[in-house]
Amino acid sequence: MPRGKPKIAIFGGTGDLGSALAKKWAKKGYGIIIGSRSKEKATRIARSMRKELDVKSIEGFELAEAAKLCDLGVITVPYISHATTLKAVKKFMQGKILVDTTVPFQKEVTKVSLPKAGSAAIEAQNILGGGVTVIAALQNIGSHLLSSEDSIDAEVLISGNDEEAVNLVTKLIEDLGLRSWHAGPLENSAAAEAVTSILIAINKKYKRKSSGIKITSH
Amino acid sequence: MPRGKPKIAIFGGTGDLGSALAKKWAKKGYGIIIGSRSKEKATRIARSMRKELDVKSIEGFELAEAAKLCDLGVITVPYISHATTLKAVKKFMQGKILVDTTVPFQKEVTKVSLPKAGSAAIEAQNILGGGVTVIAALQNIGSHLLSSEDSIDAEVLISGNDEEAVNLVTKLIEDLGLRSWHAGPLENSAAAEAVTSILIAINKKYKRKSSGIKITSH
Repeated sequence: MPRGKPKIAIFGGTGDLGSALAKKWAKKGYGIIIGSRSKEKATRIARSMRKELDVKSIEGFELAEAAKLCDLGVITVPYISHATTLKAVKKFMQGKILVDTTVPFQKEVTKVSLPKAGSAAIEAQNILGGGVTVIAALQNIGSHLLSSEDSIDAEVLISGNDEEAVNLVTKLIEDLGLRSWHAGPLENSAAAEAVTSILIAINKKYKRKSSGIKITSH
Repeated sequence: MPRGKPKIAIFGGTGDLGSALAKKWAKKGYGIIIGSRSKEKATRIARSMRKELDVKSIEGFELAEAAKLCDLGVITVPYISHATTLKAVKKFMQGKILVDTTVPFQKEVTKVSLPKAGSAAIEAQNILGGGVTVIAALQNIGSHLLSSEDSIDAEVLISGNDEEAVNLVTKLIEDLGLRSWHAGPLENSAAAEAVTSILIAINKKYKRKSSGIKITSH
């Protein structure tokens, strides 16, 4: 990891969550690489973001190349594309940090349904192998909140086993304007992933646009 | 279910969480049955509570008898006694509501470790069968908070499939002085159970006595 700001690849950066993260971080001075299965789409979205934000440091590449060029990767694809995306970036992510934002939704998004491995982030770690430091975060913040300039009344749970990597991700999340908590080892991503279905169930039941969680103290 | 306040059996009512719940509900006028494997221990604790609170409506019984006499049961035993306790009350809980507060802790309480069925509450439903309405709640509120008179800055997630039963449990939790949310179907107990390990991890990392969660809205 270089000194200064890491260059961030966003695998799925053409989607709602990925685009929102890309723009917020680009505005904070991070170099951004939009990674997509389609290089054409990635470069097109990157060009449009450069124009919109009037910044230079957003590029678009196909997934493997995005992984090769980045210091740190963030995966923001739907769960159905999670494993294939990870396999596409595995080779070039060795020695790097991968931030997994995935919620393993099945058919009913209001019902918790965790994979056998325990969580999507543990699946990511299993696919990428021990050479990649997987950190789970940002499962509970809706992309519509991140794409707005309004302040967000919700906090982020970060799960991971590497203290230094957790601290770096804490800084990245702070630069999104969000408070975060180190919520324990990577296994605890199960809680954060499961909470998203609860928040959607609450939105539905209580007729809200969006819900989040906060940690209280006594 | 009779009109008016249900008679509540607390399976594990001799423990910290069970005792705290018993006292708070007794003070609100609910009839309480302390259920324990040991009838002697149950009657002794019940007598001590009657004296401490100066109320009459707290009795102590062995588990099966407690189940027989109650309108609604609450299980507050450690996970290691969860299945055996449920088997002991199964027969007499048919047609009733069972509120499951269990967190399926393994060796490391700061690490999420959900059972294969998905959650302890789903295991409870599987053991008790379809004749019992299992509602999961109160996994995230420490017994030391419930046993104090101080107000609690934390909220309760209620998971369950039966709207009427959820509403009744919502009222019970309101009578503990706590706000709760219907967090979706019983499967969503996985989130609430997993969150407890996150809260303990946060307590440890940030050197706090106790943490809780709150739901925010946008």
